[in-house]
Amino acid sequence: MPQLRKDPILKQWVIISPERGKRPSDYKKTIEEPDDSAECPFCEGKEHLTPNETLSFRTAGTDANKKGWWVRIIPDSEPILRPEGEPGREGFGMFDAMNSIGVHEVVIESPNHNSRIHNATNDQVREIIWAYKQRLLEIKKNPSYKHFMVVKNSGAGLSNFTHSHSHIIATPIIPKRVEEEIEGAREYYHYHDRCLFCDIVKQEQKDQMRLVYENDQFIVFCPFASRFPFEMQIMPKSHQPFFEMIENNLVQTFADALQNTLKRQEAVLPGQPYNMVLHTSPCSDSYKDFYHWHVEIIPKLTKVAGFEWGSGFYINPTTPEDAAKALRDIAIK
Amino acid sequence: MPQLRKDPILKQWVIISPERGKRPSDYKKTIEEPDDSAECPFCEGKEHLTPNETLSFRTAGTDANKKGWWVRIIPDSEPILRPEGEPGREGFGMFDAMNSIGVHEVVIESPNHNSRIHNATNDQVREIIWAYKQRLLEIKKNPSYKHFMVVKNSGAGLSNFTHSHSHIIATPIIPKRVEEEIEGAREYYHYHDRCLFCDIVKQEQKDQMRLVYENDQFIVFCPFASRFPFEMQIMPKSHQPFFEMIENNLVQTFADALQNTLKRQEAVLPGQPYNMVLHTSPCSDSYKDFYHWHVEIIPKLTKVAGFEWGSGFYINPTTPEDAAKALRDIAIK
Repeated sequence: MPQLRKDPILKQWVIISPERGKRPSDYKKTIEEPDDSAECPFCEGKEHLTPNETLSFRTAGTDANKKGWWVRIIPDSEPILRPEGEPGREGFGMFDAMNSIGVHEVVIESPNHNSRIHNATNDQVREIIWAYKQRLLEIKKNPSYKHFMVVKNSGAGLSNFTHSHSHIIATPIIPKRVEEEIEGAREYYHYHDRCLFCDIVKQEQKDQMRLVYENDQFIVFCPFASRFPFEMQIMPKSHQPFFEMIENNLVQTFADALQNTLKRQEAVLPGQPYNMVLHTSPCSDSYKDFYHWHVEIIPKLTKVAGFEWGSGFYINPTTPEDAAKALRDIAIK
Repeated sequence: MPQLRKDPILKQWVIISPERGKRPSDYKKTIEEPDDSAECPFCEGKEHLTPNETLSFRTAGTDANKKGWWVRIIPDSEPILRPEGEPGREGFGMFDAMNSIGVHEVVIESPNHNSRIHNATNDQVREIIWAYKQRLLEIKKNPSYKHFMVVKNSGAGLSNFTHSHSHIIATPIIPKRVEEEIEGAREYYHYHDRCLFCDIVKQEQKDQMRLVYENDQFIVFCPFASRFPFEMQIMPKSHQPFFEMIENNLVQTFADALQNTLKRQEAVLPGQPYNMVLHTSPCSDSYKDFYHWHVEIIPKLTKVAGFEWGSGFYINPTTPEDAAKALRDIAIK
């Protein structure tokens, strides 16, 4: 019989349907990645095709917006939010609107067209994380922004560019999804005087069956109420509200956890597209006792239909226990 | 500049991006509907291929599960929830789960394979609505179910069957999305002592520019903070919490509104798939002052990517005003 499971953070019920029991090979790849290497503006040597960089890690003595970088951050050329102007909050009758002030930048994760996080050197992955951290700390200085996150859409059908990249997005409001996480975590904290995310880490360590990977400082697991097959979360084991305050010695272990996770995903679901989101606490100290930064990884294997839109609950045809076992047991290089 | 707009019910911010200014013809149809008429179990004469009907409207003297019907409701052959068993609420460490007790039935909306709501006779559309109402009233007698809704996934890629049908789903919990609507409506009611949905009806009538269709008892509009291009809502103008309590004289005007809306959608976005959801108040009198039944129609024209999943706010490249104008101005038969 299918089981209803409740996400302890979002309080969202998910239907886990083991009868449908889909295994990795049941998810067929539907779209191939196009070869866009000739016209790719993210490759080294094509810097003139993009807006001027806001940050780059590059060889000493090389010029900005020229060759010589290994991670490069630029404003998005078609931004969903723009840094210019005033927030301009306004009512239209009973409705509320504001200008979409914000930051939308692109982190180009390698100068090489075919590098991916799962096949890059471990050093390169660590440098990407340094770049996220350094740029977020800089953007955070502007008090107009209430929240920021890192988002990655990887693979055919999810992005206009195949070259490995992610987005940094800063918004003048706290997004609803993050508000929901905060509400869930706050309520738990009021009841238990403990961080909900810290308790999830302990529960997953105890249960073992949803664990994918673990090192000294990070844990990777398929959530108890996974909305999607092979969904994963990466969490620091110790309580840390702000990703951008990550201590130097944790950058390497986070890089290890991230790369190991994506290697496992690629081995189990070769070439499948995925979304990745890094959630950190909003820019305020009010949430620091109960918010805990984390990464969500969602392979795009299923379609979302009317039932999900209309109800807000999801049908997952692969149990998180089965998904975690496949991801844990696979041999990776 | 893109505008951030807030949904007054869900309190969700949407980025309306008129710079991307997509018109109906910019949305290309990506999948053709397959011809599955030979093996379709929903056609008249194929009743032996489906579970036994729970309701049918049929010619006097014809037998159940035989020819002679014009609307027929059956249990889904691969239900996401099943009516057997106990709810079995249980904790697993800190996590909560229960058996997925519920109702999942299929409303076959015509005996003819190629009939659709937009091209059916108006009488047939009225009969479909009678069938929804009658079956919901019956299912509601079981006190285990806290909420039910009607969901329709229409078109290639959204459903396994092309034959016109919808789903009736009853759940032992109030789905999160509906909880969110209730919360938003309750808060508004406490503040204003008025129904939020009733106020939206009045605001849309006053603003005019997002109106698609109107008759004496129903209004159709593109919501101010539409998450998706050409999203529409149908609402009764007078305050009515429960769809299934719809008065007899409103069934015809609702049928008119529904069919007119889907004709307009088909004319503007020919052959495009869509999801439709009918939301009615949960099975309790507690919500009747502030909940107001309505229908949401979402043409499936855009992809949802990492940013939307991670943030819960959506990017809509067509303003609701432009969408409503196209839908309002189109000539229909």
